[in-house]
Amino acid sequence: MSTDSRRLARALGHPFARADLLQQALTHRSAGAVNNERLEFLGDALIGFTIAEALVGRFPHADEGTLSRMRAALVKRESLAQLARGLELGDYLRLGAGELRTGGHTRDSILADALEAVLGAIYLDGEFNRARTVVLNLFRASLAQLNDAHASKDPKTRLQELLQARRRPIPEYEVLTVGGTQHAQSFTVSCVLPDDGRLSRGEGSSRRRAEQAAAEAMLIQFEGQVAHG
Amino acid sequence: MSTDSRRLARALGHPFARADLLQQALTHRSAGAVNNERLEFLGDALIGFTIAEALVGRFPHADEGTLSRMRAALVKRESLAQLARGLELGDYLRLGAGELRTGGHTRDSILADALEAVLGAIYLDGEFNRARTVVLNLFRASLAQLNDAHASKDPKTRLQELLQARRRPIPEYEVLTVGGTQHAQSFTVSCVLPDDGRLSRGEGSSRRRAEQAAAEAMLIQFEGQVAHG
Repeated sequence: MSTDSRRLARALGHPFARADLLQQALTHRSAGAVNNERLEFLGDALIGFTIAEALVGRFPHADEGTLSRMRAALVKRESLAQLARGLELGDYLRLGAGELRTGGHTRDSILADALEAVLGAIYLDGEFNRARTVVLNLFRASLAQLNDAHASKDPKTRLQELLQARRRPIPEYEVLTVGGTQHAQSFTVSCVLPDDGRLSRGEGSSRRRAEQAAAEAMLIQFEGQVAHG
Repeated sequence: MSTDSRRLARALGHPFARADLLQQALTHRSAGAVNNERLEFLGDALIGFTIAEALVGRFPHADEGTLSRMRAALVKRESLAQLARGLELGDYLRLGAGELRTGGHTRDSILADALEAVLGAIYLDGEFNRARTVVLNLFRASLAQLNDAHASKDPKTRLQELLQARRRPIPEYEVLTVGGTQHAQSFTVSCVLPDDGRLSRGEGSSRRRAEQAAAEAMLIQFEGQVAHG
């Protein structure tokens, strides 16, 4: 299953000085003690930071919750596996006999982990700005798909627009509990879709904040459509 | 409560070119719409990546689980708040009236978030290597306290040594379930401390892996002592 990995290095835009690092990144733990788990740990953190920076720069009005939600959609296992497939990463993997027989080279988790490991290896092989560029190139299309409108609008507005676009009634918000001290109150609010009864909850230090959190939670239930809107 | 923040910038080792970024990092959401929440998102990711890199470099034999556990101990809210107190960060915070009255400038969550935001601001004000150096200087003592022995030994060995040092009997491991297919088996193992009956569980693709995971879970129950060795 292991093809000449220089083709992969070219596709990534990084000619490895240390070929052993790339080989290690492509080695699943089922294939040996020197495997890609540590590089995956590093690559995961590299991607998290690079995407955070890209989102902060691109969406100057998005709040922290929106930024977190967008990042989670970009870096989730399925998204990473899809990028790995675009690189035909499965063809380069080194797997143990059991994983080979059960189709490990097509499995989302193995592909996503290997992609993280390859990016971690690029960082160790080169330096930060090189690795950052490779990550940004890899995620360019996904980043471009994120809708500015979604990012700059608050969750309640986005949820209302999403429902209206589907000709569904607007959500109903209700304060469930008010707690805390006078100067540090805590509100819990429910958000209900009146037509199908779907429910979410949110907490916050004001009624408005709690409503936004509840709308955010409801949006997460619609995640696919919203994050890639 | 807001003192001349140039003293803080000196303590951090980064003279800000853009003083507004530092001011924003020190502004809690209770004090205004332009606050530190977005910078906190960025700083959290910066710290996560920088500490990941430092741990990977320092502990060449530690597995991913150990690296994750060490990082979690270093960057948890209480640890960050302690570092923030060392910088007297509370003295520089801008808080709303309610938070001021209820002692917000001494609260762990507010201090930890503000420290993350300040580091995010340093990244935006300078460049990666500068921010990385500031993070590593800040965490130097905590990183130095991590015990090499703990990091290079596997969880079962570490657990056994920890118990022996306390003159307690060694743990008992038992396979609870075996599932999966022939070539992709999944084991669940329990780890019991015979003297006090404390229990943990672990899963893995082999009995040995599952035992290590169970030992790791038990170590997490002893976390304070272990992570800071």
